[in-house]
Amino acid sequence: MSAQTYDKARTALLFIDPYNDFLAEGGKLWPRVKDVANDVGLLDNLRAINSAVRRAGIKVFIVPHRRWEPGDYETWRHPSPSQQSIMKRHTFARGEWGGDWHADFAPQAGDIVVKEHWGSSGFANTDLDMQLKQHGISHVIIIGLLANTCTETTAKYAQELGYHVTLVRDATAAFSHEMMYAAHELNGPTYAHAILKTSDLIAALPAA
Amino acid sequence: MSAQTYDKARTALLFIDPYNDFLAEGGKLWPRVKDVANDVGLLDNLRAINSAVRRAGIKVFIVPHRRWEPGDYETWRHPSPSQQSIMKRHTFARGEWGGDWHADFAPQAGDIVVKEHWGSSGFANTDLDMQLKQHGISHVIIIGLLANTCTETTAKYAQELGYHVTLVRDATAAFSHEMMYAAHELNGPTYAHAILKTSDLIAALPAA
Amino acid sequence: MSAQTYDKARTALLFIDPYNDFLAEGGKLWPRVKDVANDVGLLDNLRAINSAVRRAGIKVFIVPHRRWEPGDYETWRHPSPSQQSIMKRHTFARGEWGGDWHADFAPQAGDIVVKEHWGSSGFANTDLDMQLKQHGISHVIIIGLLANTCTETTAKYAQELGYHVTLVRDATAAFSHEMMYAAHELNGPTYAHAILKTSDLIAALPAA
Amino acid sequence: MSAQTYDKARTALLFIDPYNDFLAEGGKLWPRVKDVANDVGLLDNLRAINSAVRRAGIKVFIVPHRRWEPGDYETWRHPSPSQQSIMKRHTFARGEWGGDWHADFAPQAGDIVVKEHWGSSGFANTDLDMQLKQHGISHVIIIGLLANTCTETTAKYAQELGYHVTLVRDATAAFSHEMMYAAHELNGPTYAHAILKTSDLIAALPAA
Repeated sequence: MSAQTYDKARTALLFIDPYNDFLAEGGKLWPRVKDVANDVGLLDNLRAINSAVRRAGIKVFIVPHRRWEPGDYETWRHPSPSQQSIMKRHTFARGEWGGDWHADFAPQAGDIVVKEHWGSSGFANTDLDMQLKQHGISHVIIIGLLANTCTETTAKYAQELGYHVTLVRDATAAFSHEMMYAAHELNGPTYAHAILKTSDLIAALPAA
Repeated sequence: MSAQTYDKARTALLFIDPYNDFLAEGGKLWPRVKDVANDVGLLDNLRAINSAVRRAGIKVFIVPHRRWEPGDYETWRHPSPSQQSIMKRHTFARGEWGGDWHADFAPQAGDIVVKEHWGSSGFANTDLDMQLKQHGISHVIIIGLLANTCTETTAKYAQELGYHVTLVRDATAAFSHEMMYAAHELNGPTYAHAILKTSDLIAALPAA
Repeated sequence: MSAQTYDKARTALLFIDPYNDFLAEGGKLWPRVKDVANDVGLLDNLRAINSAVRRAGIKVFIVPHRRWEPGDYETWRHPSPSQQSIMKRHTFARGEWGGDWHADFAPQAGDIVVKEHWGSSGFANTDLDMQLKQHGISHVIIIGLLANTCTETTAKYAQELGYHVTLVRDATAAFSHEMMYAAHELNGPTYAHAILKTSDLIAALPAA
Repeated sequence: MSAQTYDKARTALLFIDPYNDFLAEGGKLWPRVKDVANDVGLLDNLRAINSAVRRAGIKVFIVPHRRWEPGDYETWRHPSPSQQSIMKRHTFARGEWGGDWHADFAPQAGDIVVKEHWGSSGFANTDLDMQLKQHGISHVIIIGLLANTCTETTAKYAQELGYHVTLVRDATAAFSHEMMYAAHELNGPTYAHAILKTSDLIAALPAA
């Protein structure tokens, strides 16, 4: 994996769920991720990658979870456990601070904001695959939360769809260290083409 | 979850990769799964479920992995680590014993044999979703191998597609106990609607 | 086809693109559809069906085209001819009257508003398939515009995905009569399970 | 469209359903297509394109319809009219001459034979999209039968998925001239990026 390189014309950054509820002090899920987040240096790493990929001319795709709205899931036959939890907690509520972009990671001009995903894959029920094709992308670098849910499921879909997939082990977090271990040591190595540290990823990016 | 019930007209069993290479003494991957398999009583449980669902009138869908053929993956831009491993070992080779059905789990008359999947999801690049719809299925019970790869990814896709998903914790196996733990204690509870033991599943099936 | 019946628990109305630009005097595309629309009695038929399905307890899914926004398609490698036309004309512009719902066909409480589609299929790059499953739907009745583009492509996708598909020949319109003929006499009969007149559809709906 | 060019590393030929039943004297559907086929010079054009794309180094994907087998569609809730017709006529029967490749268009070494499609889209329920990505393809040239069913639906899916789509008006056929007109004059111009004659396509191919 040390030889991994990225062609800026064919590589995209997929930034999963950069919401205050996940990433900011006061967010609904921050208390559950902050131990792991602090241990891996999450916020600094996300900022470093976010800057580095833009300097390198790599396209950024924001891949946001459905923002909760009144009525969501209520008529569904069988919402998943995660969706049932969102119904109770109103996670990522539309129009509220928790469902707004973290200030450091709001979309910038030229970014693609993909349609919101209802489950854990940023590809399922959205336009992500088509948008990647319409921008000539074959390689995706996936960062954001959670390592073992939305990030992993989006990454698995990317591989099934035919993309080259890079995970970044310290640019994500989870509710526990064992979930991080499951994502990067148990499952990631079966499907991901590269699993890098932030510093290695940045070193592998093309010059601007 | 104790209240989970199954309507035979709307429920299907998805049996993932019932190949000799996975399940039989002498299979290429059996040495890597047999410790976990023996600990959970895998083969007895698979046999019990296979019989019980048929008695209950529940439709069986066989969900097979791509059988390796010469040339597979060789022209692909970026086969995944699992696919690269298959290229080397010729796992599930077409026309060989390892890629044949385990004798106890071969398709029976009336079963649907879904198209072979190239990766870890039985839905990706196959006709599984359409076949389920054409048979009126809304609930899937997923058994077979491996707990944290094909079984989990097929199950996650099922949830994203709108199906009700049941995992069976002792009717699958993996290369290690920590992979089983990741599948059923860390990840499964985020997306699966029920995670049962074989005995509980059989008790919940409808009378014939 | 005279025997076609509909179970209200399993049937949905898919209403394609009920925008002012298509359906209202002053809309950008109304001048191109109005001859056919008037000849088939489009607006009266849409109103009749819209009322009748609601009385029958059938769920309504609004299936809207992407509302044009500044920048749309501009970075895409190859927008289609229809998309290039939208770039020029700003059809269905977000925030403008043309991209607002026709007053008679705005979503009502309990309706599902599906994600906007970028092309001509209401399923492609949206959550329509999953939403149908989460509401137990196996049969779709498809009305709205245009007969040979969004309506036909959505209907073809529905068939490929495993749904039962009903077209309504006088509850749609097109830019020419030969396009209507192509949709209902040449192509529809190859994939659609029923092609009805509005009056026959309403007669076939279940009592409330 | 005169300026259309093709990069051999990014372009694929999709050859739809090159079966004896469609293309050969004695085939089950040949009597229904032969008038149009002869008028456009179908077989000569297919042969010319098949040779020219290979000389140009363009990858060939064979996109075959499901070969009929006993039992097909019989347990389905609602096979389409085309599928019901296949049930009666055993069109493209597996193991029979009619379901074998036309002698001039059998797959050659290095071709990709995509999974068989059940309906009219070569993408639906198959691995075509993933195979195109794993071979770096962004542009597809679609030839074969029928112009207004499998060819058109495959082409529409390609556009929705984000590919650049070329139709070839005299390298396809249909049951009637008005179906050809519908495919190339009414519907094609809404979604296809180029609609060429065989001679123009061949002139636009890259040198070897």
